[in-house]
Amino acid sequence: MSVKRFGRQTVRFGKSPVIASVGSVAGRKEQEGPLGHCFDRTSRDSYFGQKSWEKAESFMQSQALETACGKIDMPVDSLDYIFAGDLLNQCCASAFAMRGVGAPFFGLYGACSTFCEALSLASMSIDGGFADTAAAVTSSHFCGAERQFRLPLEYGGQRTPTAQWTATAAGAAILREEGNGPRITAVTTGIIRDAGITDANDMGAAMAPAAFDTLTAHFRDLGVGPESYDLIATGDLGKHGYDILLELFAKSGVDASRVLDDCGMMLFSREKQDVHAGASGCGCSASVFCGYIYDGLMTGKWKNVLLASTGALMSPTTSAQGESIPGICHAVAISAQKETS
Amino acid sequence: MSVKRFGRQTVRFGKSPVIASVGSVAGRKEQEGPLGHCFDRTSRDSYFGQKSWEKAESFMQSQALETACGKIDMPVDSLDYIFAGDLLNQCCASAFAMRGVGAPFFGLYGACSTFCEALSLASMSIDGGFADTAAAVTSSHFCGAERQFRLPLEYGGQRTPTAQWTATAAGAAILREEGNGPRITAVTTGIIRDAGITDANDMGAAMAPAAFDTLTAHFRDLGVGPESYDLIATGDLGKHGYDILLELFAKSGVDASRVLDDCGMMLFSREKQDVHAGASGCGCSASVFCGYIYDGLMTGKWKNVLLASTGALMSPTTSAQGESIPGICHAVAISAQKETS
Repeated sequence: MSVKRFGRQTVRFGKSPVIASVGSVAGRKEQEGPLGHCFDRTSRDSYFGQKSWEKAESFMQSQALETACGKIDMPVDSLDYIFAGDLLNQCCASAFAMRGVGAPFFGLYGACSTFCEALSLASMSIDGGFADTAAAVTSSHFCGAERQFRLPLEYGGQRTPTAQWTATAAGAAILREEGNGPRITAVTTGIIRDAGITDANDMGAAMAPAAFDTLTAHFRDLGVGPESYDLIATGDLGKHGYDILLELFAKSGVDASRVLDDCGMMLFSREKQDVHAGASGCGCSASVFCGYIYDGLMTGKWKNVLLASTGALMSPTTSAQGESIPGICHAVAISAQKETS
Repeated sequence: MSVKRFGRQTVRFGKSPVIASVGSVAGRKEQEGPLGHCFDRTSRDSYFGQKSWEKAESFMQSQALETACGKIDMPVDSLDYIFAGDLLNQCCASAFAMRGVGAPFFGLYGACSTFCEALSLASMSIDGGFADTAAAVTSSHFCGAERQFRLPLEYGGQRTPTAQWTATAAGAAILREEGNGPRITAVTTGIIRDAGITDANDMGAAMAPAAFDTLTAHFRDLGVGPESYDLIATGDLGKHGYDILLELFAKSGVDASRVLDDCGMMLFSREKQDVHAGASGCGCSASVFCGYIYDGLMTGKWKNVLLASTGALMSPTTSAQGESIPGICHAVAISAQKETS
């Protein structure tokens, strides 16, 4: 019998791995947003000095990981595992970022939920006794994503009100068995939920039911509620998806409005930055967590945070074939307090 | 300290999860090959009754998983975790196959190494105490892969001698903490290795150095050698990559020729089936293991098998940008004998 499992979707860790360090990298628009001062490294050049946007994204991942390791004087190649992913076809931003790093590598794909997927598996690798150190790294790049998923940038197509703006950002978190820092106490793994949405410019509506399912499962499995957290941050539902999630909670008789926020709404100013519903991308929740939320856990702003990255699992091919958009959400509970397990 | 870790890349399991059941699905060319009689389900229709090759691939994954669960009377939605991946952009074959399955889902991308990546993480989820049951599922489809990675099928471009033929196949393995069946005793996780190969029609040469690295790490970490195994089956190097791997071993003074074989060479007859160097794809090692090798472990043909799926981590975009091809290989040690740990 799996002794760490609670309910259908949740595990609670015995050792509660420590997030010992984080690194964040962001582009110009992100730097100009409300969290612009939070990131470790930023660049006003969308190419980050590289020859293509794809290479720029790999560079961002490398920088995020090196920064996170550098803060705790840990050689990058001493990591026991790296769990990494991104949005590019064949997850090439991750593969090319990590090919120079001499550490065992697991490639992941969970669309914009990948950061919490990586944190979940990295936590398990440590709590299970397979690793002393593990990294979770994800990224996205507006220009690379736009031309891959939608249209050439030069086309300048008009965006719908529900559309989201892919974050040009990367985040890396270093997990350790021991040390100082907030601890990952539990993870709730998502079940794919397809709400029948077929508009690829309305990912918030496709992901909100998955977020509702996973958060509800988390509460049910652990016998807790929204009040157990100071902050519940969904991955990147954007304003439209966030409103749907609040409505789903209200219908189920749960008031989550006091603590619920969304990384896609935090990263940009919707009033000033013309991003429509907000930010998205594997780099969104990664950079918001590593650049902003982590600091709040370290400085006492929040004691208990539930990070719930959300992903829309369609591809341009499936959308062209008329398919609806499957959504998924993985939740990670993080506590600023030292566990006494 | 991680007590289950041996050396830089290997973990040895305390509980050694059991592979309680497997399911395999294959297409017409695979059915006509030397292992054609081994698969649970085959179809002479490349669409498997679906409306597109992408949907056909999802269907194959579903069928493989349902077959594997059906053999042990386990409801698919009772699985604690599903680890799945494929080659299609945004791993959509897996996402759409698993959207109807009510089980927690982790999406993976390791190109053709994904099956061993999935077995590795599924094993950790059980040995770590996070799950009682977990599935590893991967697939590939020649027609979907060909038009995505290379050219429209109608174009009929000539293939180079080193080219490989993407398998139309899927495999699913159900892991359990207890029960009858071969056991996963150890896994060695790959470090990305880029040998500088830039020809996307020569993936064997790009992957062979990664296979050599991971197998060498496995031997070193556990203090064993090729003689510890009755069969070492690499993922899908094909004949060209296989020859390179043998040469790399010979240069390092290791004779692996007696036990080394390659799933990409087993699946098709190179003499009769015009597949050039052999098979490839996430479904190759998955279907060869689930359709053929598993049976050999159950019937006593082999006692100790090392399955080492290999992946080429490029994308059409990175190849178009002149990048070389990063390779990776994950190895999984499987023993027919009941562990007495």
